[in-house]
Amino acid sequence: MNETARIGRKHPRRIPARQGIAAEMVAGQTATILNTHGKQVVDTWAFNAADMSEVMSMEHSRTAMLKIAPQVGDTFVTNRRRAILTLVADTTPGVHDTLIAACDTYRYRDLGAGADHANCTNNLHAALAAIGRKAAEVPSPLNLFMNVPVGADGTLEFRPPTSEAGQYVSFRAEMDLVIVFSACPQDVTSVNGMEPTDAHFLID
Amino acid sequence: MNETARIGRKHPRRIPARQGIAAEMVAGQTATILNTHGKQVVDTWAFNAADMSEVMSMEHSRTAMLKIAPQVGDTFVTNRRRAILTLVADTTPGVHDTLIAACDTYRYRDLGAGADHANCTNNLHAALAAIGRKAAEVPSPLNLFMNVPVGADGTLEFRPPTSEAGQYVSFRAEMDLVIVFSACPQDVTSVNGMEPTDAHFLID
Repeated sequence: MNETARIGRKHPRRIPARQGIAAEMVAGQTATILNTHGKQVVDTWAFNAADMSEVMSMEHSRTAMLKIAPQVGDTFVTNRRRAILTLVADTTPGVHDTLIAACDTYRYRDLGAGADHANCTNNLHAALAAIGRKAAEVPSPLNLFMNVPVGADGTLEFRPPTSEAGQYVSFRAEMDLVIVFSACPQDVTSVNGMEPTDAHFLID
Repeated sequence: MNETARIGRKHPRRIPARQGIAAEMVAGQTATILNTHGKQVVDTWAFNAADMSEVMSMEHSRTAMLKIAPQVGDTFVTNRRRAILTLVADTTPGVHDTLIAACDTYRYRDLGAGADHANCTNNLHAALAAIGRKAAEVPSPLNLFMNVPVGADGTLEFRPPTSEAGQYVSFRAEMDLVIVFSACPQDVTSVNGMEPTDAHFLID
């Protein structure tokens, strides 16, 4: 049985379009995030389960990895420079983003979409509240499948994901942690191919 | 009288080598940061003076600027996507960093330099405490003069600054704010040319 078939048999949980969901992981478990329809960005955060002030940090992880985006084998670290998640599989072309903030009320106001537009920052807070957790801050997210190429002159551009339906990434938990996913509701720029959809995840 | 002479006559304040310093700015004032000896990185943070939970955010600023580093005319924004600092002058070659976390106790422990090594994170807290202020979190800093080129393959490299003695950058305050500078004490990697030195700043 190949890996995709294995995942299919395990009944992944749904990350509903435009919404967030949080889950607990024990060290050594694997989280697999499926880009079910291919073009959905999934904002991802991780917190030390024993101390929510210790957070997966993009700026500390870039320093540790000496890369702007992870490749299989790379480990994300916390704001205390401890290993938290290792990328152990990636069936996509490997395009993910660590540079861009989670969308929020202010972003959609600025884009003219109205301040009541669903957003990843509110999704983070709601998803944590649903499992009785709370974040002290909103860390810069790991934007799975998000395609923001850096030009030779340092300019950034928002483009649709390069991933295809059913492709996935898997992370090993390096500590007991809380992981949060938000199926990004961005429908003003092309980061989700203009059509926010469900995604799925599996912890095993 | 040229600009450098003007700054020289105004008696800039010292940012002592390996230390931090904080100052208040009123909207419309200009902060000029001089790389006195040429190769010193200055980690820089800004906070809304009326609400220290509103912070200059590198991840929100990259989204707003669509660049990984600022050029003259670019405006940094807060975690509420409001303008906070605009780069109005830059006599250096324009190489600054927004990707790398401030150094901290954990960084020097990992580098084998000992956990009691001076670091920019502790400098931030100490500098704010010295003016009766407190940060709820440690935002990702604006690393002035820091040279961390992004390769075509997304890899990062730590190199010495490209700036020369006496070169400077100037920022206009877009709101009443608290600004904090740390003359980075990093002497294990080459980011400060291996020799941390004083820098200077002027607010007028």
